[in-house]
Amino acid sequence: MQRLAKPLPLKAVAEFAGGRVIGDDRTLLSGISSIESAAPGDLVFVEDAKNLQAALESRASAVIAGEATAAEVTAKRAASKPILIAAQPRLAFARAAQLLCPAADRQPGIHPSAIVHPSVVLHENVTVDERVVIGEHAEIRENTCIGAGSVVGANVKIGRDCHLYPNVTIYSGVRIGDRVIVHAGAVLGSDGFGYVRDLKTGRYEKFPQVGQLEIGDDVEIGANSTIDRAALDVTRIGRGTKIDNLVHIGHNCQIGEDVIIAAQTGLSGSIVIERNAVLGGQVGIGEHARIGEGVMLGGQSGVLPNKVLRGKGVAFWGTPAQPVRKYLKQLAALARLTKKE
Amino acid sequence: MQRLAKPLPLKAVAEFAGGRVIGDDRTLLSGISSIESAAPGDLVFVEDAKNLQAALESRASAVIAGEATAAEVTAKRAASKPILIAAQPRLAFARAAQLLCPAADRQPGIHPSAIVHPSVVLHENVTVDERVVIGEHAEIRENTCIGAGSVVGANVKIGRDCHLYPNVTIYSGVRIGDRVIVHAGAVLGSDGFGYVRDLKTGRYEKFPQVGQLEIGDDVEIGANSTIDRAALDVTRIGRGTKIDNLVHIGHNCQIGEDVIIAAQTGLSGSIVIERNAVLGGQVGIGEHARIGEGVMLGGQSGVLPNKVLRGKGVAFWGTPAQPVRKYLKQLAALARLTKKE
Amino acid sequence: MQRLAKPLPLKAVAEFAGGRVIGDDRTLLSGISSIESAAPGDLVFVEDAKNLQAALESRASAVIAGEATAAEVTAKRAASKPILIAAQPRLAFARAAQLLCPAADRQPGIHPSAIVHPSVVLHENVTVDERVVIGEHAEIRENTCIGAGSVVGANVKIGRDCHLYPNVTIYSGVRIGDRVIVHAGAVLGSDGFGYVRDLKTGRYEKFPQVGQLEIGDDVEIGANSTIDRAALDVTRIGRGTKIDNLVHIGHNCQIGEDVIIAAQTGLSGSIVIERNAVLGGQVGIGEHARIGEGVMLGGQSGVLPNKVLRGKGVAFWGTPAQPVRKYLKQLAALARLTKKE
Repeated sequence: MQRLAKPLPLKAVAEFAGGRVIGDDRTLLSGISSIESAAPGDLVFVEDAKNLQAALESRASAVIAGEATAAEVTAKRAASKPILIAAQPRLAFARAAQLLCPAADRQPGIHPSAIVHPSVVLHENVTVDERVVIGEHAEIRENTCIGAGSVVGANVKIGRDCHLYPNVTIYSGVRIGDRVIVHAGAVLGSDGFGYVRDLKTGRYEKFPQVGQLEIGDDVEIGANSTIDRAALDVTRIGRGTKIDNLVHIGHNCQIGEDVIIAAQTGLSGSIVIERNAVLGGQVGIGEHARIGEGVMLGGQSGVLPNKVLRGKGVAFWGTPAQPVRKYLKQLAALARLTKKE
Repeated sequence: MQRLAKPLPLKAVAEFAGGRVIGDDRTLLSGISSIESAAPGDLVFVEDAKNLQAALESRASAVIAGEATAAEVTAKRAASKPILIAAQPRLAFARAAQLLCPAADRQPGIHPSAIVHPSVVLHENVTVDERVVIGEHAEIRENTCIGAGSVVGANVKIGRDCHLYPNVTIYSGVRIGDRVIVHAGAVLGSDGFGYVRDLKTGRYEKFPQVGQLEIGDDVEIGANSTIDRAALDVTRIGRGTKIDNLVHIGHNCQIGEDVIIAAQTGLSGSIVIERNAVLGGQVGIGEHARIGEGVMLGGQSGVLPNKVLRGKGVAFWGTPAQPVRKYLKQLAALARLTKKE
Repeated sequence: MQRLAKPLPLKAVAEFAGGRVIGDDRTLLSGISSIESAAPGDLVFVEDAKNLQAALESRASAVIAGEATAAEVTAKRAASKPILIAAQPRLAFARAAQLLCPAADRQPGIHPSAIVHPSVVLHENVTVDERVVIGEHAEIRENTCIGAGSVVGANVKIGRDCHLYPNVTIYSGVRIGDRVIVHAGAVLGSDGFGYVRDLKTGRYEKFPQVGQLEIGDDVEIGANSTIDRAALDVTRIGRGTKIDNLVHIGHNCQIGEDVIIAAQTGLSGSIVIERNAVLGGQVGIGEHARIGEGVMLGGQSGVLPNKVLRGKGVAFWGTPAQPVRKYLKQLAALARLTKKE
């Protein structure tokens, strides 16, 4: 793990991450850690009072904790380490990590082994790593970093402060917003899976897959995930949506904002996922289905084509996916059937 | 989407795609579109009469429709746009797209950054893009294009008119037919998953994975899919088979002709899939199973090892996969169990 | 398949692979084969007596068989080919393959197109293929081969006798043991999938993913699989564990020794898999679950978060995973329900 060469006082961390300090705010910090692995100089966090004691007994130099914990500490007058009290301690820790655990230095500029078409527009402070290929008329905005071996097609637009890891492939014409992270091996804008069967010959012919793919700001896309361009229109991934590894998103899908999609989930074509939905791992969704705002789908759930699931915060599970309570009742009934034997 | 710089008359499209024109066949066309996004110059299509009105009211310049629709139009004597009547309108649209939505121009030739072993045989009009590596004694036939960053192993044979997208990996000795499309990140010919456990030490040793992989003509393979070579014999993918993204095909599988395999489906070893089978997404099939001609497997179905499923046009679903009617009855019976409570 | 230019006598094979020869041990061998495809010079194997006749009638030059088979051969005094009798015939065949079916020759050395940071430590006989990128302070030990287009991050340590196939991506700081095989397109050390939702804005912020990934000796990792680094601590893959294609292993997982993980299985975060467990294909496991030593999970099984499964050699199946007998009873009971109708 990266550690700061020049430690920062807890006070500076509190100012950046939010919260107030109980104890010595001049305590110097140079990294973050789990409680188990903490070393001097580390900042750790707890979300509930029961872990507080372990955190205080760890080798860490400071602890982030919540308001409830603060009351307890104050009551006991007994904190052996300085504590940063934050309304959302996990969030404060995540933000503190930006200060205490910075990304590796990189040198902006185009590596001489990269092959960038002369028509490409590169804005300020762009980093183009070894062996990257960028096609004609692409545009890469400020501070974006393209990892080694990535191939960026013609006419692709990538926003500012993005990070593409190595060996990513972006097909021509894809549009990517700002602060997007794309992990290694991901493929964006590949052809959708669409064919027409010629009734005379019995052979499949390719239906045109010539639409677009647009990815909003603050999206993260996991390693080796694939997102297809639309057949004729636009596949869209909304702002803030987070996609895990090995996920497949088919052509013409419309994914809303702040959607969570866990690993190995697959969406066939023309699916709508509304904002704030949470999809577990290995979920499969049939074409033209709609997952309503805030719906939660348990791991391995299956949703039939054209199905509509609705309910903010309502969890569905099973194949075909049902409200989780109903599904659990069915599982219990099935178990009872065999117990009677 | 690409548009034609030099529009074509509807008459030329009708001659290429098949069908007859009602209305002005001199209407100029420069692209294709969905009805919703149509712009002047676009060709759209409808498959049933109910969408015809929307197509005629769209901004498109011409419409493809079926015979049934033609009768209606003639009866009403009321088409506001020229209509291309085709026996299979969706197919005619797919073919028209080849004229109206051509692939990006490419310059045949070997990019200077590609590393092609001197023993490689490249036929006419082959395109080898940036940073491609081609191993010794490989052979690439006419008009094939190898995308940037792809690695083609020694002794690989690739047919004519193929398109490998960027960052594809082809292990040594793989044979690929004509007009094959391989999307970015796909891996062809990797080692199968086979080990022998030494009963003395308890350790797994690698069983040889030294067979072949042969891919027939007109196959399409999706992004980040993986197809393993055989242990000792040959893994085969039949002519015209279409494979979606993130599909896994294990060693020694024999996939017939015109098979459809949707995204994230996985086949373990030595499976036979007969011609015209259709496998939904996230299907899993155990080793040595056989899926008969024309069988359809619903999404997320599971087929046990050694199982044989038969029946042209018969749909199976569930794990273990059963005829879909039978499975739906079981789901209904289960639901009733809990309603009684 | 590779064949030996200079054939070896069966005696030499027997000495290397173990076992004793019935018949002429001077018989020359130049390759291995399945019984069906055998040609003169090939060695084949049988595991049970029923295949022995086919092996003896094949075109192979010699057969490996077990002790039970030997008795039968001796009783009949009728072997038409020399037979290598081994306690574990499949294992002997696998070992014979190392002699008879050697890997392609490779020239140790750094290809001039590779980009290796001057601070990298390369031990003896390392092969760095075309277009590889190796970041600063990485270390690669003896006889290891890095395939074309692979990207090895800063501070990565790779042991001896490893083979990375093309287009692999290894994020910074990953540690890999000896004799590890990594297939094409695999991604090792990518960020885990962890976010904190800001309750004020509703937006997800990235939880730090700054831990490590350590891979033990003799591990094999399939094509396009992804293994995430830990959030704060270490993701570990134990010695001898074999991972198939398109597998996902989330952050902080602890995989024991000699574990088998079939294709497309997915592990979310902080899961413990104890030694000798066997996971079928498309299995999904929720966070913080523990799979005990020697547990077997059938294909497509699902294990809930925090669940603990125990029992050496006990098979579980279904979602949620249950002992397979219990699960089969439930399936049977369900089938009976509908038969009554």
